[in-house]
Amino acid sequence: MIENVAIVGTGLIGASFGLALRAAGFTGAICGVSSPPAVAAAVEAGAVDRAASLAEAVASADLVFLAQPIGRIIDTLRHLDPLLKPGALVTDAGSTKCEIADAALQCIRRGTFVGGHPMAGKESRGAAAADAALFRGRTWVLTPADAADLNTPLAHRFIHWLHAIGARPISMDAAEHDRVVALTSHLAQLASTALAATVAENVPAERLDVAGSGLADMSRLALSSYELWRDIVATNTGAIEKALTTYIQKLDHIRENLRTRQLQEEFERGAKLAATVRGSSTRGNLG
Amino acid sequence: MIENVAIVGTGLIGASFGLALRAAGFTGAICGVSSPPAVAAAVEAGAVDRAASLAEAVASADLVFLAQPIGRIIDTLRHLDPLLKPGALVTDAGSTKCEIADAALQCIRRGTFVGGHPMAGKESRGAAAADAALFRGRTWVLTPADAADLNTPLAHRFIHWLHAIGARPISMDAAEHDRVVALTSHLAQLASTALAATVAENVPAERLDVAGSGLADMSRLALSSYELWRDIVATNTGAIEKALTTYIQKLDHIRENLRTRQLQEEFERGAKLAATVRGSSTRGNLG
Repeated sequence: MIENVAIVGTGLIGASFGLALRAAGFTGAICGVSSPPAVAAAVEAGAVDRAASLAEAVASADLVFLAQPIGRIIDTLRHLDPLLKPGALVTDAGSTKCEIADAALQCIRRGTFVGGHPMAGKESRGAAAADAALFRGRTWVLTPADAADLNTPLAHRFIHWLHAIGARPISMDAAEHDRVVALTSHLAQLASTALAATVAENVPAERLDVAGSGLADMSRLALSSYELWRDIVATNTGAIEKALTTYIQKLDHIRENLRTRQLQEEFERGAKLAATVRGSSTRGNLG
Repeated sequence: MIENVAIVGTGLIGASFGLALRAAGFTGAICGVSSPPAVAAAVEAGAVDRAASLAEAVASADLVFLAQPIGRIIDTLRHLDPLLKPGALVTDAGSTKCEIADAALQCIRRGTFVGGHPMAGKESRGAAAADAALFRGRTWVLTPADAADLNTPLAHRFIHWLHAIGARPISMDAAEHDRVVALTSHLAQLASTALAATVAENVPAERLDVAGSGLADMSRLALSSYELWRDIVATNTGAIEKALTTYIQKLDHIRENLRTRQLQEEFERGAKLAATVRGSSTRGNLG
């Protein structure tokens, strides 16, 4: 059973998880651990019942949800074990999984760590923007070190609640997760940043009105703050380097084939992928 | 005075121009030249008064507006001159300007050609999707071979009507136009196509649900049809090759600096450009 939940980091994701649990009928206690203003905002939003120190929140928690930035999650894992209720399930919401999994493997003994990554977010940050429906219809990746870690009563309850809040949990290796998101997420961010920076350096400011809506679309991600991405890039450098290399090779191929049928093939391949990614999907997920 | 307008090519752009003229109070005649079903749709939409052959429409037209695909515009220019009313103003809506300007320079004698590129469009095509407000607030680039070509009474009337339909006309060299759109539009398209094709080839289909909204954004342009882009790429190959080279260099630089402060600088540069491009703008335009 999950009676007590500790949400460590009560920003958009942590606070939305609290709200979503409540909306789905969770009646246990939810403690929030964060800076005083952040946790006050989460209490105000109804996302957590009360603020607590890490030690206090974790002492009785059956489920510990680390929803901090990646670097902070790794820090927390290094201090967490002695504070845990024996047998607790510890999970997280970090956007990269291998380095977090390594830290958990070294540090977590008294409980079980199952990495997680909800594929959800929005442009606004903080508990004030929290939304009980944030995870609805969205994939929630779980990266257990051992598949058996998902076959405990506590993990079953956690997965039950993920379904209850509308998420679609799936399971994969941390390394596979990091390789896939390097291509589907991190590469998209860097392609946008690089495009915007290229235009900034090569188009005079007074000519920027000679642009269609395509550039506006393609530069939305470039608005993202470096603060958010620094940890992601630092903890998934190898996979991102490979993804960039593959993308550069594709661009090179296109440049060399602007007047051949190869370009048509790339358009067709790209359009098919775009239709899949942008269409509604009902792929199988974790039962 | 502009009393008779011929719109050659009555798809989205041509038909929207007809509707916009009418909505702005134009009371002259508007003839449409296109395939029978396309021109019937334009008549039905109220964008043109009637269908006519090219020869018939152009014989009395003070303004000839070529709103066909680029390759068709170049074909039309090669046959147009003997049919023109002497002194007519011929303009177009092609997305690249140098090759069209070259064709006009070789072929148009009895009238004056001023190249044009309205920075407007939408995903739906054809006269059925036409919209009198399509050009409102959008830049409309004019690329006269000689600046004096914009200083004739007829050109003044044309520019008057561009303002009247809500467009923001600006003037520049055809070569500068093509260099700028290679970066602001054509590169954005190819960056999206290349990203989508890269993901298609490197992420198994069953893992595509491990993607955030960023990839959906970044692959919208990849839905564009090759048919539309073949002419653009074929008529702006040099500038597009250069733009791709510059973009690849930027991606290389980012790949080599994933863990240095340089990455932060690229994020800051990109975010600034994105805010400019995505923000509302009130830059000066042609009086």
